Amino acid sequence: MNWSKWSFVAVIILLKFDFVFSQASPTILIAYYSQSGNTKAMAEAVAKGARSLEGISLILKSIQEISQNELLFADAIILGSPVYNANLPPAVMEFINSWPYEGRPLKDKIGAVFVTGGGFSIGEEAVMLSMIRSMLIHGMLIVGGDESEAAFGASAITGEGAFAGQPVDEIFLRKAEGLGRRVGELVLK
Amino acid sequence: MNWSKWSFVAVIILLKFDFVFSQASPTILIAYYSQSGNTKAMAEAVAKGARSLEGISLILKSIQEISQNELLFADAIILGSPVYNANLPPAVMEFINSWPYEGRPLKDKIGAVFVTGGGFSIGEEAVMLSMIRSMLIHGMLIVGGDESEAAFGASAITGEGAFAGQPVDEIFLRKAEGLGRRVGELVLK
Amino acid sequence: MNWSKWSFVAVIILLKFDFVFSQASPTILIAYYSQSGNTKAMAEAVAKGARSLEGISLILKSIQEISQNELLFADAIILGSPVYNANLPPAVMEFINSWPYEGRPLKDKIGAVFVTGGGFSIGEEAVMLSMIRSMLIHGMLIVGGDESEAAFGASAITGEGAFAGQPVDEIFLRKAEGLGRRVGELVLK
Amino acid sequence: MNWSKWSFVAVIILLKFDFVFSQASPTILIAYYSQSGNTKAMAEAVAKGARSLEGISLILKSIQEISQNELLFADAIILGSPVYNANLPPAVMEFINSWPYEGRPLKDKIGAVFVTGGGFSIGEEAVMLSMIRSMLIHGMLIVGGDESEAAFGASAITGEGAFAGQPVDEIFLRKAEGLGRRVGELVLK
Repeated sequence: MNWSKWSFVAVIILLKFDFVFSQASPTILIAYYSQSGNTKAMAEAVAKGARSLEGISLILKSIQEISQNELLFADAIILGSPVYNANLPPAVMEFINSWPYEGRPLKDKIGAVFVTGGGFSIGEEAVMLSMIRSMLIHGMLIVGGDESEAAFGASAITGEGAFAGQPVDEIFLRKAEGLGRRVGELVLK
Repeated sequence: MNWSKWSFVAVIILLKFDFVFSQASPTILIAYYSQSGNTKAMAEAVAKGARSLEGISLILKSIQEISQNELLFADAIILGSPVYNANLPPAVMEFINSWPYEGRPLKDKIGAVFVTGGGFSIGEEAVMLSMIRSMLIHGMLIVGGDESEAAFGASAITGEGAFAGQPVDEIFLRKAEGLGRRVGELVLK
Repeated sequence: MNWSKWSFVAVIILLKFDFVFSQASPTILIAYYSQSGNTKAMAEAVAKGARSLEGISLILKSIQEISQNELLFADAIILGSPVYNANLPPAVMEFINSWPYEGRPLKDKIGAVFVTGGGFSIGEEAVMLSMIRSMLIHGMLIVGGDESEAAFGASAITGEGAFAGQPVDEIFLRKAEGLGRRVGELVLK
Repeated sequence: MNWSKWSFVAVIILLKFDFVFSQASPTILIAYYSQSGNTKAMAEAVAKGARSLEGISLILKSIQEISQNELLFADAIILGSPVYNANLPPAVMEFINSWPYEGRPLKDKIGAVFVTGGGFSIGEEAVMLSMIRSMLIHGMLIVGGDESEAAFGASAITGEGAFAGQPVDEIFLRKAEGLGRRVGELVLK
């Protein structure tokens, strides 16, 4: 084997290494706040969607348990919240306000959201857009679900009509799964 | 009959006249834009709610048929629209942009809204708030439905899950009725 | 003086009494949350506007000092907040979430809002509409400022361009005054 | 030169070619609607920002002149609009409604927005979020400006206070430039 052959192999190795290194284990952080369990159920469906793809590290945690390092390390943050009086609960706003801002370390990370609300159109969109606005303040790239019915993120109605007193409906869990899968596809790119 | 008696009678007559004049027939204008018939169905339910009260004049018309005088004369305007790409259709924006602005003649009129959208949380809130914002530009007083599940106005989901391919569901028509009744109660005050 | 004269006088007295009773001291509650003093300055301008009218009782307080009775007794609530990450601060959301809901005792009260934000279009509208949405959940009647430049309420930019490092600019304080005056005119009706 | 040397050269050439091909001329479409010239001025500043980077193809056009192929071919779409009654003008909504939807061909394209409005907080945020919502319906990835003061996109106030009757202020043009540069950096990735 002469010099040129060695160089050739070296290039291939370096290319592979670069490929492996940059593609290995992109991380998705799924952060949720749940009192009744509904938002947690949506979070688990988001996780299921992301897990359907190979090669993704997943952190699924309540917002109270998340460290600053987990935020900084994640390639994508998917944040889920219930609706309180057509707005974000204080605990979720406190979580968002705790995100590191100096130097804008969350810039260019992928951001996505999901929400559970008691009734039809009583704040689900508003809360999704509230979280999206805060993510844009941090310079994140926003992505919605994988169908236009989940355009702003995955939403669920849990307390009105046929949905009252039931576990989160399959129609909404599917949107959450689609959201997880879509974010997964993006971090793998 | 002496002077004081005549004065007394005159005062009573004037008071009655004033009462009759000011209270008689407050007018509600229900303006809708409907392609599929769903928003029209909601408009008719709003009208039904308002008609459940006595002493209200009601105008129920498509936005294309409404004259400027009808806008000016109304004590309340209830505007209904479908959702197009998570926003108001151009025709509804054109209607709003045609409202008289000079001297702000719509100021202090009551404003309320209703909406129909294809899927859950894909623009119903956004479109209700779009119409509310324009009404606030004109100085109108905004009121929602008569229950917190219709807080921003009456909304209907017409194209997803169990609601797809069906006439507008009773749960949403009831909200529209409640909205009409609530606006009716306010204009009668 | 004969019977008719006495009756006449009695009617006048009753009318006056009714006038005095129903008009006496409608109450406006101005509730604000302020860390830097900017939102407090806006609150004081709102109060100045309301005080320019006679016959209004005014309560001007930080949200931490407001009792439930003050909320229940007020004819109008004007709520002011800064912008945190394009959303309401947790403390303001906690205040809103503490409002009495059972029986909807805030229904039909007048609601209006004001806001201070660091930069141009980085959440001022969003925060005004956040507060408006919560007020609509409670069934309140929403009113904006007295000019279309304060359509959703009174807003101030306090940290960007020529406005950075200055007291709240007169252009914004005038909007706050106009808002107070407009709400005052409505509660006097 | 032996076989391995030729292979090595071939690999290098292919890598270069691939690099050139995939990186060459990502295209940004800047689409604006302007009546007074203000939104056009912002569009030109967005273009200036994008042109500050090498290797980007730029299309800068009024929405009336844009073909469907230009939409389909673009890697990023930056849409600019004035504020009409706190909402999008009908012409911009018509443009958005004309975007190809079948098969969601705009999915994964980068989307960003800019806006000009007459007064402080009378619809700039609302119109930026209106455009963002429609882009999310199409599955686009949303990005804001390059500083948190342009979080939702680049906005300009053109008709109130010191900004009235003036060309678009430098403070706003800088945000537009930053937006163009930021989108440019992303399409070059």
